[in-house]
Amino acid sequence: MSYLKPENPTGCTIWLTGLSGSGKTTIARNTKKFLEKFNIPAVHLDGDRLRQTLNSDLGFSKEDRRENIRRVAALAIMFAQEGYISLVSLISPYAEYRLAARDAHERAGLKFYEVYVNTPIEICEIRDPKQLYRKARSGDIPEFTGVSSPYEVPICPDLLIESGIYEIEECCNKVLRLLVDQQIIPSSTLDPVDRHLPITQKFDLIEASKMLPKIQIDQLCLQWAQVIAEGWATPLEGFMRENELLECLHFKTLTANNMVHSQSIPIVLPITDADKHKTRGFESVVLHHGEKPVGLLTDIEVYEDRKKERCARTFGSVDVGHPTIKQIIESNTQWLLGGKLQLFERIEWNDGLDHYRLTPQKIRHQLIQMKADVVFVFQLRNPLHNGHVLLIDETYNKLKATYSHPVLLLHPIGGWTKDDDVPLEVRIKQHQVLLDEGILDKSRTILAIFPSPMSYAGPTEVQWHAKGRIVAGVDCYIVGRDPAGVKDPSDPSRDLYDPTHGAKILQMTPGLKCLKIIPFRVAALNKKKNKMEFLGPDFNQVDYELISGSRMRQMAREGQKPPEAFMHPKAWQVLADYYESYQTTK
Amino acid sequence: MSYLKPENPTGCTIWLTGLSGSGKTTIARNTKKFLEKFNIPAVHLDGDRLRQTLNSDLGFSKEDRRENIRRVAALAIMFAQEGYISLVSLISPYAEYRLAARDAHERAGLKFYEVYVNTPIEICEIRDPKQLYRKARSGDIPEFTGVSSPYEVPICPDLLIESGIYEIEECCNKVLRLLVDQQIIPSSTLDPVDRHLPITQKFDLIEASKMLPKIQIDQLCLQWAQVIAEGWATPLEGFMRENELLECLHFKTLTANNMVHSQSIPIVLPITDADKHKTRGFESVVLHHGEKPVGLLTDIEVYEDRKKERCARTFGSVDVGHPTIKQIIESNTQWLLGGKLQLFERIEWNDGLDHYRLTPQKIRHQLIQMKADVVFVFQLRNPLHNGHVLLIDETYNKLKATYSHPVLLLHPIGGWTKDDDVPLEVRIKQHQVLLDEGILDKSRTILAIFPSPMSYAGPTEVQWHAKGRIVAGVDCYIVGRDPAGVKDPSDPSRDLYDPTHGAKILQMTPGLKCLKIIPFRVAALNKKKNKMEFLGPDFNQVDYELISGSRMRQMAREGQKPPEAFMHPKAWQVLADYYESYQTTK
Repeated sequence: MSYLKPENPTGCTIWLTGLSGSGKTTIARNTKKFLEKFNIPAVHLDGDRLRQTLNSDLGFSKEDRRENIRRVAALAIMFAQEGYISLVSLISPYAEYRLAARDAHERAGLKFYEVYVNTPIEICEIRDPKQLYRKARSGDIPEFTGVSSPYEVPICPDLLIESGIYEIEECCNKVLRLLVDQQIIPSSTLDPVDRHLPITQKFDLIEASKMLPKIQIDQLCLQWAQVIAEGWATPLEGFMRENELLECLHFKTLTANNMVHSQSIPIVLPITDADKHKTRGFESVVLHHGEKPVGLLTDIEVYEDRKKERCARTFGSVDVGHPTIKQIIESNTQWLLGGKLQLFERIEWNDGLDHYRLTPQKIRHQLIQMKADVVFVFQLRNPLHNGHVLLIDETYNKLKATYSHPVLLLHPIGGWTKDDDVPLEVRIKQHQVLLDEGILDKSRTILAIFPSPMSYAGPTEVQWHAKGRIVAGVDCYIVGRDPAGVKDPSDPSRDLYDPTHGAKILQMTPGLKCLKIIPFRVAALNKKKNKMEFLGPDFNQVDYELISGSRMRQMAREGQKPPEAFMHPKAWQVLADYYESYQTTK
Repeated sequence: MSYLKPENPTGCTIWLTGLSGSGKTTIARNTKKFLEKFNIPAVHLDGDRLRQTLNSDLGFSKEDRRENIRRVAALAIMFAQEGYISLVSLISPYAEYRLAARDAHERAGLKFYEVYVNTPIEICEIRDPKQLYRKARSGDIPEFTGVSSPYEVPICPDLLIESGIYEIEECCNKVLRLLVDQQIIPSSTLDPVDRHLPITQKFDLIEASKMLPKIQIDQLCLQWAQVIAEGWATPLEGFMRENELLECLHFKTLTANNMVHSQSIPIVLPITDADKHKTRGFESVVLHHGEKPVGLLTDIEVYEDRKKERCARTFGSVDVGHPTIKQIIESNTQWLLGGKLQLFERIEWNDGLDHYRLTPQKIRHQLIQMKADVVFVFQLRNPLHNGHVLLIDETYNKLKATYSHPVLLLHPIGGWTKDDDVPLEVRIKQHQVLLDEGILDKSRTILAIFPSPMSYAGPTEVQWHAKGRIVAGVDCYIVGRDPAGVKDPSDPSRDLYDPTHGAKILQMTPGLKCLKIIPFRVAALNKKKNKMEFLGPDFNQVDYELISGSRMRQMAREGQKPPEAFMHPKAWQVLADYYESYQTTK
């Protein structure tokens, strides 16, 4: 996501006041770091550092403290006038001077938020990062706030942070939450969209919606409804309206509140002429899947589905030999129905896998509980062999050099896939075996389902796979040659997409600049050493065996067993069982 | 164009020093305005204004002036550290203190440019915008620089501006040129790309290039070569390489030096297998058109032309019934040749129209000479009737409310058009008659040819038509329903594109935010009043006659004459003559 400077930017000032050592500077610094990830302009005006530059002529007398605050306020105003969020960390012990700073902002027409970082002096004194309390107690520093100079507690601060109790992330979150509540920054920076109606309203609204036209949606649209409602396509709040679709088709983005988000795959609700007729005169409709009312679509808009153009701009093809293009072109729908979506309740599939279907919000919570400081995702729609595991381990080890707690989000795609792909339940079972057997480390892995359908749109889809994971809090994305993974229907000896385009395009996608792209490396079985190794430029065909996805499926179908170094036997058994039963069914 | 904040932004300080009234503030303010058009962060730190806020405690004693400069320097440094160009306008009369400001920047690792705004005190005193000289002379203001307090002239400023001699635009230009030369801002903000070899090198290079493989280019590619070399596709410096094409196809942009430019139409050089073979082992080739060597392509790259994908993503269609798609798909080329282009000389067509083929740079110069303060463009590939003239007049009058010298760039497309379009020479002749007859005002119009070929790519092409004109200095773009202007080859009763999409998409195109989009209004002949009028919602079919482009062509073919209110008879005669000779030829 990337923030665009509005035409008339209005910034504001967050004024952090509190004792020395209370945590003001750390909160300001981390809040700034967070905002910068989204390109939101923020500046940290630190009292201590300013005393070395702008305010190097000032001491600690009451008069000098007044002047210090006056100047910092003037500075904060200048940055706020440029559209910045000025994060001031300054002891500012006197209420009168803080009030003067607020007045100066109000005279300039700018918002000023006083944030009291309330940490008991005992804790500050234990922290004592600069050994100032020690010096103040010994008399080496005169007029030290809290020891030999007063601190006037804010009576009615805009925000109170008990930084002695909460962790730093939570303190920053309080500041960020304030900025969202005050509509200074878009809520999508903090929270994925959540379009589920509160349980208290559910029954009343189902009742009331009986007056509205019913639109039947199929399983594919139900999967997209889940994607929207759980916030994977944040800031999208429903099925795309025409302007949203045009931005997506032409620029692969979605802009809301000056924030540019990546959105490469159209999320639309196709309807028939008869459905269009039904909606006439209504501003809302109720969506049904079979007998079940699923949710409301409000503030609706019906517009032409220019199917071929939609396919051409999304898939770079209009060939109906392509599975998704076929669905779109051959359906009996002519129109698209856009509008805001609200689901009556979470969508569940009752296939025994719903507990793997974690919302982005839920994943974020789990990551916090795991104390993850960096998260990498492995996107896949195939079983995982030891070549993949090697890549995961290597990525983990590289991240470990910089971070304390890298966590892997193992995130197989859970929506519609084409018939010859391995079904979701088999893949999940296979992944779970790898966790249970310790091939993947449970303590640093989340296995969850990405509920999106596959579109097989190659380099366009890979952007969507990356963007959806940003919403869940992911920092690094491993991209493979998967984007090429369908054959050209008009020449099945060729890939439909250039296998290198996915990775190339991810490097330039607007709205994905905050994501680190990790290139996929191909591994093969070293037959001599009987282990998986990455293929280097000096690889010789004699020593290595490359087992491709189709070769793997073929072996499973034919009841062959690959070497144990390729895949743990229990995991292999899951695949073998599936292909056995598959062939029996056939 | 839009500037992206780099990951580690480094700003700098432009320190404008000079007497009161010398023009420092005006130069700073206008430079800031220019930079903001491109989203380049710039802040104006004005001495006078800062004395009301940050420096309100200071007077004009030498010591206070020192402190004033010290604080402003600290402030400039803080903004520069945020990636800003700090534009300081401050008398700063003492060399010693200016040196201190420079030192402070250098200690912080930031560039500092001293700009001496050298205006003779006599001129400053005549200007005397704040009546300060008068008060100083009468003794009401003590210690006034140049009167009762010294001004130490900079001995070796980074830039000297004689603001008494030059106009304000030229003064700003000197500052901007400094920023370009110092690689602080991309050169594309000031200058279109110019890829013509200096005349001094021409013959040597033609000689030397005889060693290089020859690639024959057709007329269409020659037109594109002209587009590139004259800078219409700035910052593109040659035929697209793969990364440039991918960004263009997927995101409709081209990013260079952190500046995002709109670029919706691919500009590529398709070559055959045989040509590819020829380039093997070479880093450069020479381009020929017929017998004539046209230019050099250096640092070349050959990559696959995924024709269908290229068409699908550009045209939203792969239908070979479309004239441009047909050319692309049915050509005998398989590869694209990317690289930097340099032409041996300007391309001329010797059709009697070359003097209308003004480069963007030339148009910018003419606009300056005409003292244009706002420029609007009318893009067209058809004759101009009085409905168009009405729109031009209305736009002019609206702009006149805010600006002193609005200028129209009448800019017909000059490259390849499909066979049934009116040829360029006829259109130019018709436009010229309108100017000669005073239907359009010569004193506020530039008639020039936009050398690009048409692609008939609808909403994708309209972005290119707008972007090309930005390079020539245009501020406002009139967009019509022209983007729809081809029929769907698979259903000729329909437009290929939705006629409203062009205008909708222009509103969201990245890199076009600095362009004002003026929606087209349809005019028809009011038969009662015998004049052209815009169609309002209350328009009744009986009173009005709507003469469409095809109706117009039909009338000309059949020798009918439209009412004089529709088009000046002399202009109509140009069309009638063309269609007469056309039919004779046929």
